[in-house]
Amino acid sequence: MSIWINGQPATQLDASDRGLSYGDGLFRTLRLLDGAPLAWRWHWARLQHDCAALRLPCPEAELLLAELAAVSAEWPDAVAKLTLTRGVGPRGYAPPAAPQPTRIVQAGPRVAPPAERYSQGVAVYACALRLGLQPALAGVKHLNRLENVLARAEWQGDEYAEGLLCDSEGWVIEGVMSNLWIRRGRELLTPQLDRCGVSGAARAWVFDTAPKLGYQVREWRLRPADVLAADEAMLCNSLIGFWPIARYQQRRWSVFTASEALNRAWLGPETDTI
Amino acid sequence: MSIWINGQPATQLDASDRGLSYGDGLFRTLRLLDGAPLAWRWHWARLQHDCAALRLPCPEAELLLAELAAVSAEWPDAVAKLTLTRGVGPRGYAPPAAPQPTRIVQAGPRVAPPAERYSQGVAVYACALRLGLQPALAGVKHLNRLENVLARAEWQGDEYAEGLLCDSEGWVIEGVMSNLWIRRGRELLTPQLDRCGVSGAARAWVFDTAPKLGYQVREWRLRPADVLAADEAMLCNSLIGFWPIARYQQRRWSVFTASEALNRAWLGPETDTI
Repeated sequence: MSIWINGQPATQLDASDRGLSYGDGLFRTLRLLDGAPLAWRWHWARLQHDCAALRLPCPEAELLLAELAAVSAEWPDAVAKLTLTRGVGPRGYAPPAAPQPTRIVQAGPRVAPPAERYSQGVAVYACALRLGLQPALAGVKHLNRLENVLARAEWQGDEYAEGLLCDSEGWVIEGVMSNLWIRRGRELLTPQLDRCGVSGAARAWVFDTAPKLGYQVREWRLRPADVLAADEAMLCNSLIGFWPIARYQQRRWSVFTASEALNRAWLGPETDTI
Repeated sequence: MSIWINGQPATQLDASDRGLSYGDGLFRTLRLLDGAPLAWRWHWARLQHDCAALRLPCPEAELLLAELAAVSAEWPDAVAKLTLTRGVGPRGYAPPAAPQPTRIVQAGPRVAPPAERYSQGVAVYACALRLGLQPALAGVKHLNRLENVLARAEWQGDEYAEGLLCDSEGWVIEGVMSNLWIRRGRELLTPQLDRCGVSGAARAWVFDTAPKLGYQVREWRLRPADVLAADEAMLCNSLIGFWPIARYQQRRWSVFTASEALNRAWLGPETDTI
């Protein structure tokens, strides 16, 4: 593991950082191949969006790319995490007028998920926790992630690779660490994330890429019953690509055509466009 | 400012701490008089409650009291902050099976609020942000405080000492950094915090103390109109005690009998019971 803080190798952070005090910041998790972040274009767009939502200044892309390459240099296939906080501030919720953001870039070797998660699909746990609705933070990959922590603590062991979360009104929103897509014929649907949830880079990539693969793509409000009725369902994030769902509640799937097509494209020339 | 981390003087924290990564932890803000935390009994009860809600091991009271006294030793009237996190963990939301919690105790001199906030009351801003509903975290003083940060950023300057927050259904919940009480005759009402909000130690103290002062006390669902119709309204936390509200929206108040009685008791022998 290699860590840089504000452009310097470091492992420690000021205990008065607002990232710790209030979760006042955001993050991204990226896969790097030979130092180049996969799907950077989509990560960058999400990062700018999230910085604007929290009114955090966004660093220059060139700076981030250089730091990501530096921390991941040891590993040809690396996992990196970029964290931006509003920096050190005096006690109290009021954001400093001139914040000095903290920038943490860390990386380690990527351990590839088991191959059968792609070939046979994954079992998905139906989480009991319901996501609260907060339009002011919806979609943002911010550091207030206790809901995810509590949801992930609902199951242990290897039977389930991921859990699926609904919101307080019962709409399906996302996986604990991934976004959800379902397929109906040639149509791909993903939950709207205007009231809760995290809008990931791989999800954004699908909107641009799936139409080129012959799929119609749109956001929709989905019920668990819509997932159960789907021809195919899958989970995505920047580290795993696309995992087809083999089992959710009483439903079984074994046709994974869209996830196979998306996984091929994810590691193909459509993605590698810095 | 003086800081101890896990029992040692320190100012820096591991950048992989889950408190930073996910806001996976909780905190308390206390006032210490000659090294003794005011209303400790109520802080301790809330701390145990919050640890249980997050399934964090709670340190021994004796340890915390000793560390709070040590970090605040320089100042006869001190503000201390106690932060507990789930500690350093590998990447991923799953809580470690055997967490090594991080304990941060920091203190500095208390700057007393302006005297007129007690004698003349405060003006309160009506925040536009609505608190999301999350029963699994309601009442807990956890580190996911972006809602408070966004709400506090809604106003600048000295006109308003505090902002009042409603939930997504329009019920009044709390101040950005305080709890709310309203008075109707000899009855004190405070919002129920079973779906959102932070249940503070000073609020808990009122339940035990106000009856001895001749007030009936209960939790209730309150609308902004209930606040406007109250005989008196006030905000409380462990640092400020009780601030009467002089102005909220179009309403003005100038009778502060309950807040005066509570402030007297707050610094009296009822409170000082470690």
